[in-house]
Amino acid sequence: HSYVIAVLPGDGIGIEVMPPALRCLEAAAKVFGFHLEWRHYPWASCTYYHQHGKMLPDNWKPLLQACDAIYFGAVGDPATVPDHISLWGSLLLFRREFDQYINLRPCRLISGVTSPLANRDGKHIDFVTVRENTEGEYSSIGGRIFEGTDRETVIQNTVFTRIGVDRVIRYAFELARSRPAKKLTSATKSNGISITMPYWDERVEVIGKEYPDVKVEKYHIDILCAHFVQRPHIFDVVVGSNLFGDILSDLGPACTGTIGIAPSANLNPSATRGESGDTWMPSLFEPVHGSAPDIAGKGIANPVGMIWAGQMMLEHLGEKDAANAVMGAIERVLKVSRSAQLRGESDILTPDMHGKGTTEGLGRAIEEEILKS
Amino acid sequence: HSYVIAVLPGDGIGIEVMPPALRCLEAAAKVFGFHLEWRHYPWASCTYYHQHGKMLPDNWKPLLQACDAIYFGAVGDPATVPDHISLWGSLLLFRREFDQYINLRPCRLISGVTSPLANRDGKHIDFVTVRENTEGEYSSIGGRIFEGTDRETVIQNTVFTRIGVDRVIRYAFELARSRPAKKLTSATKSNGISITMPYWDERVEVIGKEYPDVKVEKYHIDILCAHFVQRPHIFDVVVGSNLFGDILSDLGPACTGTIGIAPSANLNPSATRGESGDTWMPSLFEPVHGSAPDIAGKGIANPVGMIWAGQMMLEHLGEKDAANAVMGAIERVLKVSRSAQLRGESDILTPDMHGKGTTEGLGRAIEEEILKS
Ligand SMILES: CC(C)[C@H](C(=O)O)[C@@H](O)C(=O)O
Ligand SMILES: CC(C)[C@H](C(=O)O)[C@@H](O)C(=O)O
Repeated sequence: HSYVIAVLPGDGIGIEVMPPALRCLEAAAKVFGFHLEWRHYPWASCTYYHQHGKMLPDNWKPLLQACDAIYFGAVGDPATVPDHISLWGSLLLFRREFDQYINLRPCRLISGVTSPLANRDGKHIDFVTVRENTEGEYSSIGGRIFEGTDRETVIQNTVFTRIGVDRVIRYAFELARSRPAKKLTSATKSNGISITMPYWDERVEVIGKEYPDVKVEKYHIDILCAHFVQRPHIFDVVVGSNLFGDILSDLGPACTGTIGIAPSANLNPSATRGESGDTWMPSLFEPVHGSAPDIAGKGIANPVGMIWAGQMMLEHLGEKDAANAVMGAIERVLKVSRSAQLRGESDILTPDMHGKGTTEGLGRAIEEEILKS
Repeated sequence: HSYVIAVLPGDGIGIEVMPPALRCLEAAAKVFGFHLEWRHYPWASCTYYHQHGKMLPDNWKPLLQACDAIYFGAVGDPATVPDHISLWGSLLLFRREFDQYINLRPCRLISGVTSPLANRDGKHIDFVTVRENTEGEYSSIGGRIFEGTDRETVIQNTVFTRIGVDRVIRYAFELARSRPAKKLTSATKSNGISITMPYWDERVEVIGKEYPDVKVEKYHIDILCAHFVQRPHIFDVVVGSNLFGDILSDLGPACTGTIGIAPSANLNPSATRGESGDTWMPSLFEPVHGSAPDIAGKGIANPVGMIWAGQMMLEHLGEKDAANAVMGAIERVLKVSRSAQLRGESDILTPDMHGKGTTEGLGRAIEEEILKS
């Protein structure tokens, strides 16, 4: 097999974590006998924006549609380009235009990564956030009126559609059904947000009837965030709107140790490849972390989020064995490195994991571990 | 001095935590020589709703306006009344009608309360969330169209006004200026929510120019939640929209140990008492926790959130010494009780603080401690 992958490193640490991640995936391809063709693109970055006055070239869409998947680093340089311009001009546009309506974000307590929660190492934390990825609070509808006066009013619409809400909830139920715990937690805020959120609750209830074998719980987002800290082990599959999914998928990895390892798959599960490439809507794989201007350029960004996102991409492409090998390698390297760290030996864990290691060093270790598979 | 206080216990554990809290405040009144006149009302509760088909009597407004402040338990019984009906028919209505535009929620690591965060006891966590309390995501504007069809669409508007945004941001800056750290953190999500949130950021920047002595930081809500878990000690004053403030003020207390102790002041700082009571807009004091149907009726709810809310009410009424005495009593009782718990002695801490104590027992201990002041 051979796969064509669009590589969009973006900005900041996106540029730093991409090379080691590519090497890890190449190692997996070598061991498991398939080919990855990288198409490197410098756009979807603020650097490109500064040069061209726009985030993307005009033909970005056919270029990406010619690929089997998109491997995406991180975008943003808030000091020079407002975030809503850089993000709506790239990542958020891709999610919309390719109708990547599922954002899947696993959160796992991995042996070797130290959780900030007391007495958690040992306790099992392993859940997946299923985030709605195209509508909801991230609408682009609204505007300002009476600008510059005391009456100035700014409105933005949250938009939930039957189609958009149902498909993500159904996906989450299917995922929950496929897992041993068979439990779905819905994030809501229907006590305060009194129009869209009660609708979300209704659809969860209606669709839940089709899944009598799945246990359903709903929590308002405020107390749900509290539960993530106080009893993260109770969660299995968590489904939320665009905004709530966003919040929970940063909070979860913070509770298990570091956002630096968290991956994200932006999926269009309905996309099929027709005769021409025109209608194909590739999925996009990225780390949960952003471009992190504060640590960019230092070579200390954690490459694991990017590598793990690549692992999800391999799984999506159908290369299960390779995906398992990459996951195994990540887990073994983190565990062994943590033990070494505790013994005061050579430290390859990056600073977000309380180490003194580098992007390069940790990436190499995982690459070598994959080659041993 | 004498103060008239509306007492609205509400539902669930609201009913259980109110009596001990009233006794604590009476103890403070006795010691410090002022009088509290309680006006007990059974409405603003689901019980009342079942009897009368509405949450409030028609004359609720003059009844509350006749009081200096409102002491509020918790509302909600989702098994029998949808949350958006019970809440919009009481608490959220009061916040709006009395223009309680500031929701102040202190979060403190208190000696004796065990934080779920590792290695935090000892580290200083002491910040205040200033939550916008009348507009934003909690608008009641929007609706459904094409109901029951595949085109079904549900829209809700987020509404930010210049007046509403500016006054809460200015309040937060003033508060930050009055504190030693002089630091303000703004919660935003302007990378994703591209119309209202960039506006919020703009107003923080503009108003910040008036406060050059206050250090300002902004974080997107997703990473901000992560920071609450990973480095809560960096925060001083945190300002957020209605929804973001809601989320952060549950998450903060979860990180310092338990939502059961967290208090909340819903303030209208501009309200003045005119000739007639008509225009008076009383402030409202409540615990952050809700009615908690899951533990209601067991007598094990933590009364501290309700008592601490009362402490904020005393401060608001101008009874500083009494307020300090109540706070001191809470702190001493929690500390001493935790030591006793660790020694395996009589345990008066409630289960949310890993104890076997009761609402009654813990309330009495604090009451007695206040009487010793
Ligand atoms: C009960 C609910 C409507 C309320 C809110 O979201 O404001 C509560 O969570 C709070 O924080 O006071
Ligand atoms: C960068 C930002 C727009 C984005 C989002 O909010 O979706 C990011 O936080 C994420 O979670 O992928």
